Amino acid sequence: MKPYLVEMGRKAREAARFLATASTSQKNRALLAMAKALRERKDEILAANLIDMENGREQRLTSALLDRLLLTDARIEDMAAGVESVAALPDPIGEVVKMWRRPNGLEIGRMRVPLGVIGIIYESRPNVTADAASLCLKTGNAILLRGGEEAINSNRAIASIIAEAAKECGIPEGAIQFVDSVSREDAIELMRMNQFLDVLIPRGGKGLKEAVQANATVPVIMTGMGNCHTYVDESADIEMATRIIINAKTQRPSVCNATETLLVHEKIAREFLPKACAELVAKGVELRGCEKTRSIVAGIKPATEEDWETEYLDLILAVRVVGSLEEAIDHINRYGTMHTEAIVTRDYDSARRFLAAVDAACVFVNASTRFTDGFQFGFGAEMGISTQKLHARGPMGLEELTSTKFIVYGSGQIRE
Amino acid sequence: MKPYLVEMGRKAREAARFLATASTSQKNRALLAMAKALRERKDEILAANLIDMENGREQRLTSALLDRLLLTDARIEDMAAGVESVAALPDPIGEVVKMWRRPNGLEIGRMRVPLGVIGIIYESRPNVTADAASLCLKTGNAILLRGGEEAINSNRAIASIIAEAAKECGIPEGAIQFVDSVSREDAIELMRMNQFLDVLIPRGGKGLKEAVQANATVPVIMTGMGNCHTYVDESADIEMATRIIINAKTQRPSVCNATETLLVHEKIAREFLPKACAELVAKGVELRGCEKTRSIVAGIKPATEEDWETEYLDLILAVRVVGSLEEAIDHINRYGTMHTEAIVTRDYDSARRFLAAVDAACVFVNASTRFTDGFQFGFGAEMGISTQKLHARGPMGLEELTSTKFIVYGSGQIRE
Repeated sequence: MKPYLVEMGRKAREAARFLATASTSQKNRALLAMAKALRERKDEILAANLIDMENGREQRLTSALLDRLLLTDARIEDMAAGVESVAALPDPIGEVVKMWRRPNGLEIGRMRVPLGVIGIIYESRPNVTADAASLCLKTGNAILLRGGEEAINSNRAIASIIAEAAKECGIPEGAIQFVDSVSREDAIELMRMNQFLDVLIPRGGKGLKEAVQANATVPVIMTGMGNCHTYVDESADIEMATRIIINAKTQRPSVCNATETLLVHEKIAREFLPKACAELVAKGVELRGCEKTRSIVAGIKPATEEDWETEYLDLILAVRVVGSLEEAIDHINRYGTMHTEAIVTRDYDSARRFLAAVDAACVFVNASTRFTDGFQFGFGAEMGISTQKLHARGPMGLEELTSTKFIVYGSGQIRE
Repeated sequence: MKPYLVEMGRKAREAARFLATASTSQKNRALLAMAKALRERKDEILAANLIDMENGREQRLTSALLDRLLLTDARIEDMAAGVESVAALPDPIGEVVKMWRRPNGLEIGRMRVPLGVIGIIYESRPNVTADAASLCLKTGNAILLRGGEEAINSNRAIASIIAEAAKECGIPEGAIQFVDSVSREDAIELMRMNQFLDVLIPRGGKGLKEAVQANATVPVIMTGMGNCHTYVDESADIEMATRIIINAKTQRPSVCNATETLLVHEKIAREFLPKACAELVAKGVELRGCEKTRSIVAGIKPATEEDWETEYLDLILAVRVVGSLEEAIDHINRYGTMHTEAIVTRDYDSARRFLAAVDAACVFVNASTRFTDGFQFGFGAEMGISTQKLHARGPMGLEELTSTKFIVYGSGQIRE
C-alpha cells in the first residue's frame, strides 16, 4: 500500500475514535462552520472549478457532463445550505433503538454507533464532496473522499475548505481527508484497505462499479444502477398515469430513478397508449414497443429482449402490454435492477399485491419513480442509493451510516 | 460453476420468490411439522450420526470435537424444541419499521422483507442445520446449507427430514437445500454465486474465515473471532468480579465469548488478584501476567505481546494491571476483536464511559462475557455472532436475516 494511503488510513482511524464519542453540539458547530466557510471562500472554489471546466472543454466532455461539473454562486449556496440542513437533523448516534429485560434481569439494548471509517469513490458532481463529508461528520464517521479526475480541482478546494473549518472547531484532521490522486492503481489500493476502512461506497458509472466488484476486499455498499418500470394497471386513472409516465421518463432522463420501461395492462392499453405515446413523442422520447403496443400505436420501433434489460439513461422508453398484474410483476422481477418500481392503479388489491410482490429498494403507488432520492425522502442529503439488500437499501441518509452495538446492564449475572 | 450448484441456485431463487409473500401461518405450520419430523425420525438421525462418530474416531478427532459431533435423544429433542421456539417468535416480515409523510403528501415507509437466498458454510455442531434452516424459513429466506465433512451424514439426514416436512406443508423444495459435497472447490464456487446468493455466512474456524475473505465475491457477514476482555474497575465489588471472571473464563473456554484477558485497575489489584488468581488456578487455568501482576501474585508466567493478541479458546488467561479506565479502554480497542467486552464496576461514570468508548459488538456492565449468544439474548436461535459493523453486529436472530424496502403511497405526485 502506498505510504500516503497508510498515513491517511491511520489518521482516519484515530479521528474515528475521537468522533465516536464527540458531542452532538461539537459536531453541529463544525457543520455550521463548514457551511460558513463554503460561503466565505466561494471565490477559491469558483477559481478551482474554472480550471476543471477548461480542462473539461479541452477534453471535449459532453455539455451534459460539463453542466454537472459547473459550479455557480447558486450551486455553492445550495451546497452550504445542504450542510446546514444536515446540522439541523437529529443526531442518530447514541440512540437506543430497542431495550428489553431478560428473565435473569439482564437489560439488553441496541445503541446506534458510527460505522468508523467510510471511503467513497465518486464520479458525480463536486457537491458530493460536501454532502458526503457532512453526513459522515454528523454520524461520527471519518471519511476518505476520492472524487473523479474531471472534478479534482473543485473537489480539492471544497474538501480543504471544509476540513479546515472542521479542524478549527476541534475536529481532528483525519476526520475529512481528500485522496488527492487520479491514479487508478491508488483507487484499487483504496478498495483493499481492510485494516483502515469499514465500508466503501462507489458512486458513479458502470466502469467504477465493475472495478469495485472485481477488486474490493473491504465491505461495499453498491449504489445506483436503475432499470426502473412504471406499470399502468387496468384500473388506472388515465390522466394521472399519463402525467406520471411523462414525469418519470422526461423530467431528468439521465438519472437512475428515471423510468426505462412502461408496462400497460391490455384492458387499458387501447385507451391509454395512443394519447400517452403521442405526449411522450412530443417530448422527444423515442419509443420501442412490443407487438401489441405496435398494433395499437403506429410508427413505433420494435423492442427486443435487450430493450427490456437496458438502463437507457436517455430519452428512450420501452413499452410492453401485459395480460395481467402478475405478468407485470414477473417482468419487473426478471428484468428490473431492484431500484424503483411504480404502479398506477385505483384498485386496492392491485396496490397491495404490487407493493408486496415487487422486489425492489423502493416501490411506489401512484407517484413518479423520480422521487427515489435522499432529499425527496426527507433525509437532508444522501450518500447514494443502495441497490443491495445488505445493511442499506434505497436512498442512504444518516441512519444508513451507522451500526449498532449491544449494551448490556447486569448486576453480577453469570451463565449457568 | 458446477451444474448441480446452478440448479440449486435456480431452485433457491424460485423458492425465495414464493417465500417472500408466504403467510406467517404457513411458515409456522411448516416449522412445527419440521420439529415433529425431527422427533419422529430421530432414529434415522442417530444412525447417520453413528457413521460420523465412527469416522471421527477413525480420524482421531479430539474428544472435544467428538462431543460437539455427538447427537443423542436429548440433543435431538433440543433441536426440535429450538425449531418450535422459532415458530413461536413474531414474524418480522411485513413489519413497517417507520412511516412518515412528506410535505407533498407522499407517505413513505420502510417495510421488513426477506434478504432472499442465504448461504451458510458451517463447521459447527449438526444442530446448526436445523437452527439455520428454521430461522431462514421464518424470515422467508431460502437457504443453501453447506456443513462440515465431519458431520456430513448427520447434516444430510437432518436437512432431508426437515426439507421433506416443509415440502408437505407446501413450502417449495428450493427453500431448504443441502449442498451434499465436501469438496473445497465446490465451497469456493458457493462463495462466488453472486447471481443466486444474497449473502453468505461462514460459521467456523479461522481457516474457513480466511478462505471466505480470500475467495468470496458475494456479500458476506463475518462471524465469531472473539478476543474478549473483562476489566475490573477500581470500584468493583471484589466478590462479584471474581465470580464473573471465573465464569467468563472457565464455564466453557472453547467458545468465542469466553474471556481471554483480564484487565485490573492498579488500585484494586493487590486486593483482588491474589484471591481471584488462586481460584482461577484451582479451576485449572494457566495464567500469563504483566510485570505488575507478577509482582503481586507469585508463580505466574510472563505475558508477551502475543498473549494480548491471542484468542486462546482454552484454559489460559492473560492478566494485565492498568493505571486507569482509559488505559483499559485503549488496550481493548487495540487488541480486541470487537466481539464482547465487560467492565465490573460500582461507579456510574465508569460504566457509562466504558459503554460509550469501547468499540465492540456487545459491551457488558457487571455480567459475564459468556452471555453473548442469540438464545441468551432472547432471539430463540442464532445464525452466528457477527463481528462486522455492516448490516448485523453481534448475535444474529430473525431481524438480522431481513432487509427493508421503502413503500411509498402517492396520489399522483410528480417531481417538479
